[in-house]
Amino acid sequence: MKYRNFKVVPQVIFGRGCFNQLDEILSQKRKNGFIVFLVDDVFMNHAFRHRIPRHSEDMLLWINVTDEPKTRYVDSLVGQVRQFSPSLPEGVIGIGGGSVMDLAKAVALMLTNAGSAADYQGWDLIKNPAVYHVGIPTLSGTGAEVSRTTVLTGPEKKLGINSDYTVFDQIVLDPELIADAPADQRFYTGMDCYIHCVESLRGTYLNTFSQSYGEKAMALCQDVFLNPGADSDDKLMIASYFGGMSIAYSQVGVCHALSYGLSFVLGLHHGIGNSVAFDYLEEFYPDGVKEFRQMMARQGISLPRNLMAGMEDHRMEKMIDVALVLEPLWENALGKNWKTVMNRERIRQLYLRM
Amino acid sequence: MKYRNFKVVPQVIFGRGCFNQLDEILSQKRKNGFIVFLVDDVFMNHAFRHRIPRHSEDMLLWINVTDEPKTRYVDSLVGQVRQFSPSLPEGVIGIGGGSVMDLAKAVALMLTNAGSAADYQGWDLIKNPAVYHVGIPTLSGTGAEVSRTTVLTGPEKKLGINSDYTVFDQIVLDPELIADAPADQRFYTGMDCYIHCVESLRGTYLNTFSQSYGEKAMALCQDVFLNPGADSDDKLMIASYFGGMSIAYSQVGVCHALSYGLSFVLGLHHGIGNSVAFDYLEEFYPDGVKEFRQMMARQGISLPRNLMAGMEDHRMEKMIDVALVLEPLWENALGKNWKTVMNRERIRQLYLRM
Repeated sequence: MKYRNFKVVPQVIFGRGCFNQLDEILSQKRKNGFIVFLVDDVFMNHAFRHRIPRHSEDMLLWINVTDEPKTRYVDSLVGQVRQFSPSLPEGVIGIGGGSVMDLAKAVALMLTNAGSAADYQGWDLIKNPAVYHVGIPTLSGTGAEVSRTTVLTGPEKKLGINSDYTVFDQIVLDPELIADAPADQRFYTGMDCYIHCVESLRGTYLNTFSQSYGEKAMALCQDVFLNPGADSDDKLMIASYFGGMSIAYSQVGVCHALSYGLSFVLGLHHGIGNSVAFDYLEEFYPDGVKEFRQMMARQGISLPRNLMAGMEDHRMEKMIDVALVLEPLWENALGKNWKTVMNRERIRQLYLRM
Repeated sequence: MKYRNFKVVPQVIFGRGCFNQLDEILSQKRKNGFIVFLVDDVFMNHAFRHRIPRHSEDMLLWINVTDEPKTRYVDSLVGQVRQFSPSLPEGVIGIGGGSVMDLAKAVALMLTNAGSAADYQGWDLIKNPAVYHVGIPTLSGTGAEVSRTTVLTGPEKKLGINSDYTVFDQIVLDPELIADAPADQRFYTGMDCYIHCVESLRGTYLNTFSQSYGEKAMALCQDVFLNPGADSDDKLMIASYFGGMSIAYSQVGVCHALSYGLSFVLGLHHGIGNSVAFDYLEEFYPDGVKEFRQMMARQGISLPRNLMAGMEDHRMEKMIDVALVLEPLWENALGKNWKTVMNRERIRQLYLRM
């Protein structure tokens, strides 16, 4: 058996108000160049924008995440940075949810690797180390702050740029930054972590490293969404970090596979796609789905329904294609012989419930 | 409030048998130089020695850990490496318990920093990055595999070389390597982790990052020592890793302070010193001490007793000095006003019980 030599984010700062230390952290990387900040445009008219430690020589890019990150958006951002200066930036800083962090990772990679981001969707296709890059979540649950992927929708597929170079060099985990997220967005993003734990802990790929992280992440999610308290933001932020770490030797399952199809064809955001799919997966994850519904009730969340109304056949087929190609997810969920129990028709029936 | 920007070991491999991947991992660092292996001399006549991926150009140093690591031992090892070759090694690999790992960290640091290891006992005194260094535990519990210190006994004091450069570049966590440790050593080293969790979780320095790691480490220790099973080695190894990570934003307490004195004056190993001291600290840690005694009973461990018999006054005074100087530990345990409740006489009385 061969194990993954897991790349871990090498610098972590955690604590309420630690965002105030960002300028000092970046000052150690500054020489005579500039830094690029990618910031969720939700902060464009928010007092938080004035706390971003942008120097006069720096570049600030407001990022729109109405759509899930696309390879052509990455290419366009990289073009803007190259137009801004002929030299490489000294850092790329992503401030936002999973989409903004993924875009920051992708921009940092594509500044030092030729071609389009779409050329690198896959595993270990990146040739050169990225520009120094920092992740600062303002929504927690995706685990994007620790993962070795940046999930992108390309012309052909939704698939990450997976490489050790993708991993952030530094993350800044300040629970105060997630305090103002809208309740539904906070819930759906948190459920990305919770569902991921359910899938990995019930999966066939798992060892004690990932199990320990997954169990604690799950317990923290249970606290946050069933017994909220004054430290819920702190706990949600650590749940996301632990959930991301647990991916080292585990894999997600049925829900994430179906959710990828929903995102690709319907443009659903990852968190909401997971929640929509998970609610119909009692046969695979009975305890998890039961608890998920308790969390929804406790948090007053209503899922969108009837998403398949008027769905054309070719789009349904594409959705099934996108889900089916994720073989490791199916194998983790259903074992080596998963093809004997899962097929296009069964996936179609699952989608038709949604 | 200012938070520590915590340096994390950037590459982790975990799994039964993953030690077999060491040669492949090192091959990525090899150019035309050599690698130094520091290996616990308990393996000198053990089949395991043949599994060490030593190439003909490499250097192997058998390490004796009868005594706790001393600065002059570090200096002597560094001298041997310099005598072996005028050029720096491409890696320093420590294979053993906490003492061997600490020595490997110290040698990697002192190869690139002039003078004696004793000159760098303290915080952030190291000037230059270390040689690439890898930690491979064969005993679990100290957290030395993840810590930013290497605890050394110098001519004047027992104090670590604390710096971000101290942290390993890679750790190899193979639970099979800890399977053959003697039961008492395994217990005392495991108790280093357990006691550390008790102290940090009850301390006044703590946040959710450290609490989450500490709680899970403690739960894993409880499993290992009260309800052992087939995966106990895996769990103990992760408990140690989590315990080490929890130190980021926490601190140890009364037990570790007293244990440092025991080590300095009596030469007690750290794990056994902790256990000896902890057994008399019911007034500070009532639940922890109770559970610790259950673990001792379950594991059939008898502590050494009457350690103070015939203790000369000047040695007792020195022991109190060593314990008292550890101000952050006392403050963590007893609060900002700890000096109103702890003094030389009370420490003497605590030592006299042992």
